[in-house]
Amino acid sequence: MKVVFQITSGDADVQLSMLGQLHNLLTQAAIEQTPLDVEVVVHGQAWNLLLPAANPLAEKVRLLQERAVLFIVCANTLRGREMQLTDLLPGISLVPAAIFHLVKRQQEGWAYIRC
Amino acid sequence: MKVVFQITSGDADVQLSMLGQLHNLLTQAAIEQTPLDVEVVVHGQAWNLLLPAANPLAEKVRLLQERAVLFIVCANTLRGREMQLTDLLPGISLVPAAIFHLVKRQQEGWAYIRC
Amino acid sequence: MKVVFQITSGDADVQLSMLGQLHNLLTQAAIEQTPLDVEVVVHGQAWNLLLPAANPLAEKVRLLQERAVLFIVCANTLRGREMQLTDLLPGISLVPAAIFHLVKRQQEGWAYIRC
Repeated sequence: MKVVFQITSGDADVQLSMLGQLHNLLTQAAIEQTPLDVEVVVHGQAWNLLLPAANPLAEKVRLLQERAVLFIVCANTLRGREMQLTDLLPGISLVPAAIFHLVKRQQEGWAYIRC
Repeated sequence: MKVVFQITSGDADVQLSMLGQLHNLLTQAAIEQTPLDVEVVVHGQAWNLLLPAANPLAEKVRLLQERAVLFIVCANTLRGREMQLTDLLPGISLVPAAIFHLVKRQQEGWAYIRC
Repeated sequence: MKVVFQITSGDADVQLSMLGQLHNLLTQAAIEQTPLDVEVVVHGQAWNLLLPAANPLAEKVRLLQERAVLFIVCANTLRGREMQLTDLLPGISLVPAAIFHLVKRQQEGWAYIRC
């Protein structure tokens, strides 16, 4: 199973809810012994989820990264905030355009979850 | 045609809008004589849509069930509210993890609608 | 690549964000020389995006139409507002039911983006 999540909200409740959903998804995949690839595309207002400091969710992101969840940020989002990839948590991937990546993944057969 | 809806909102306007969309979808499928399987995965804050009492939308849910729409609730959502399946309207199905089910259905070729 | 967007929000910020995402998507597809079909299904509260007057986003819609983005409105939405297709910007397509169209497109292999 392959799935790409999309999050655009900067709201901590929405972000926390998504991290809980990722946890539940990984847990169920482990129970059913289903191999699972998970990507999370972060764009729009959701960039703060990936900050290394003043981010109460940073540790949860790190724990999900340890469970092989790949967090991805959009270059357009970084440019709009005058930020660099190095301003974010370690291990974040970069794509040129969030929506292009989401479309490509779906065309490759990945499922899509909108947060 | 096969489609799985996802709803997480406890807001009555959002829920009413989804029920209207389901009605319109079923009506159009009947006009075009297209066989249609519909599931609605209810999780997060949307659990109140499935209550049997003090729920102004219960009758609309029941009518959609009569038209073969399957409403599904997530075990994690019930556990978080200390609720049982028997606390909900009759005929609701249970899945262990909402997102896992949504991903599985998409991988099986179902369309996905996020409410 | 083929993708259908769904927008239901009447909020100008949400609509502007979607128009920006469409621009970024088209730009990236041009860079990667990827043929791209894009449809935008407008329903619910989002109908005001397609108004010809008193609509600050009308020019952006027109520019995207010139780049081959097809904007589609739902007949149920028009009926609910007592509007005609001729009350909207030129070049808008009409479908009987928004969700039916979104499901059909996905079953035909199109990707889906929920705004």
